Amino acid sequence: MNIVVIGSGNVASHFSRAFVEAGCRIIQVYSRTPAHARALASTWTVPAISQLSDIDTTADVYLVAVKDDALETVLSQLPPALNGIVLHTAGSVEMAVFHGYARRYGVLYPVQTFSKEKHIDFGHVPLAIEASDAETQESLSRLAGLLSGRVFLCNSEQRLALHAAAVFACNFTNHCYAIADDLLHEHRLGFDLIRPLIRETAEKVMQHKPREVQTGPAVRQDIQTMEKHMRLLQEHPDWAALYDALSRQIGRS
Amino acid sequence: MNIVVIGSGNVASHFSRAFVEAGCRIIQVYSRTPAHARALASTWTVPAISQLSDIDTTADVYLVAVKDDALETVLSQLPPALNGIVLHTAGSVEMAVFHGYARRYGVLYPVQTFSKEKHIDFGHVPLAIEASDAETQESLSRLAGLLSGRVFLCNSEQRLALHAAAVFACNFTNHCYAIADDLLHEHRLGFDLIRPLIRETAEKVMQHKPREVQTGPAVRQDIQTMEKHMRLLQEHPDWAALYDALSRQIGRS
Repeated sequence: MNIVVIGSGNVASHFSRAFVEAGCRIIQVYSRTPAHARALASTWTVPAISQLSDIDTTADVYLVAVKDDALETVLSQLPPALNGIVLHTAGSVEMAVFHGYARRYGVLYPVQTFSKEKHIDFGHVPLAIEASDAETQESLSRLAGLLSGRVFLCNSEQRLALHAAAVFACNFTNHCYAIADDLLHEHRLGFDLIRPLIRETAEKVMQHKPREVQTGPAVRQDIQTMEKHMRLLQEHPDWAALYDALSRQIGRS
Repeated sequence: MNIVVIGSGNVASHFSRAFVEAGCRIIQVYSRTPAHARALASTWTVPAISQLSDIDTTADVYLVAVKDDALETVLSQLPPALNGIVLHTAGSVEMAVFHGYARRYGVLYPVQTFSKEKHIDFGHVPLAIEASDAETQESLSRLAGLLSGRVFLCNSEQRLALHAAAVFACNFTNHCYAIADDLLHEHRLGFDLIRPLIRETAEKVMQHKPREVQTGPAVRQDIQTMEKHMRLLQEHPDWAALYDALSRQIGRS
């Protein structure tokens, strides 16, 4: 399986590594920025390109992992009538984005958060797939199966909901951690003090549904404690507003 | 070390187990509800009481782990002039609550979330302590040190901030998980799909500060994606409002 990787960010890097470890061959890496293309391409000692017209037209798969707002521009510059499958990896972009730009196409969306610093074991990453036609779906399913044991079909509408759910479960959660960090720092306490709590909060929902294990003043309707926290937060109107909104929602649920 | 446990909820249960495992002796368990007192007391085959006047006045420690709003009522009913140390375990109740009710007192606040179903290894739970006087502080520090390797001094004001930080990092985080669960369910997708993401999000901040590892459309200022998510959420005004508020805060930070 010969793959051209288009993009050089976190998603492109993590997918490249996973493909190589699964025995696939990366044959080219494209990035608009030549230095970025070279950096990723040199990891696999393959050619770097920064013009889409230089793309190898014999590849089996073109993995387009670029920013959502650059995706259509990139697709419009691909050589016409490629035989390989063109894939994007975005949670919130409909598969219809490929219309007119590719013959065989699909989506390979990893439900995970990637950062430069941290290795991800792809074997456990749920991979949502969607394809232009049955044959492509079969190829994509086989390809995804090389990377992960958790491949599932997911249409564009479901994928958008899945991405929004991921924003709540990951990005908004991380922002709650950040507020906690700031609050602790303000009171000369270290973030380390709540790391075990953060880990336990995540571990709890590995076995249970979140609503079954909700704790704290809001679910107990402990008004006194909530009022004390609101007073503490009064110099941070943003956090106070969030505290109030979240507590009300938890109280109602 | 002889301990009377006052309360029979999650915190009382988890502390009791930790004390026994550390070689302390539970000598009585009190709960207003006789059946609850008996249930916990029978675990350690000790007497259950449901009248505070029946309390053993020879104990070294009285651990009061009741709901915050019941705390003062319980303290006011303790026999006067106990020699043992009276402790509460609440994050948001000032140590001053003991004034007039006890001679030697303090706070032993565990920075962790407890549920019935799940065992907690107390050895890694940060324990915030505060005491009425230097001698009591030394005793409390020694007692807490039997349970955990992470004992630290923390005044009432700091403890309130720590508790509020815990609400953000645990309770609000769990509510974000719950919204994600509901969203997935609405689109016929299972919560299992984002469990690896939840775990990775928590694991990331074990080594890094949350602001350093924030990902997602809000921090990228990916307006298109945020608008798609807002349209998806329009039938859930609560979630949409939260999405908007959190995204704005992340965008500003």
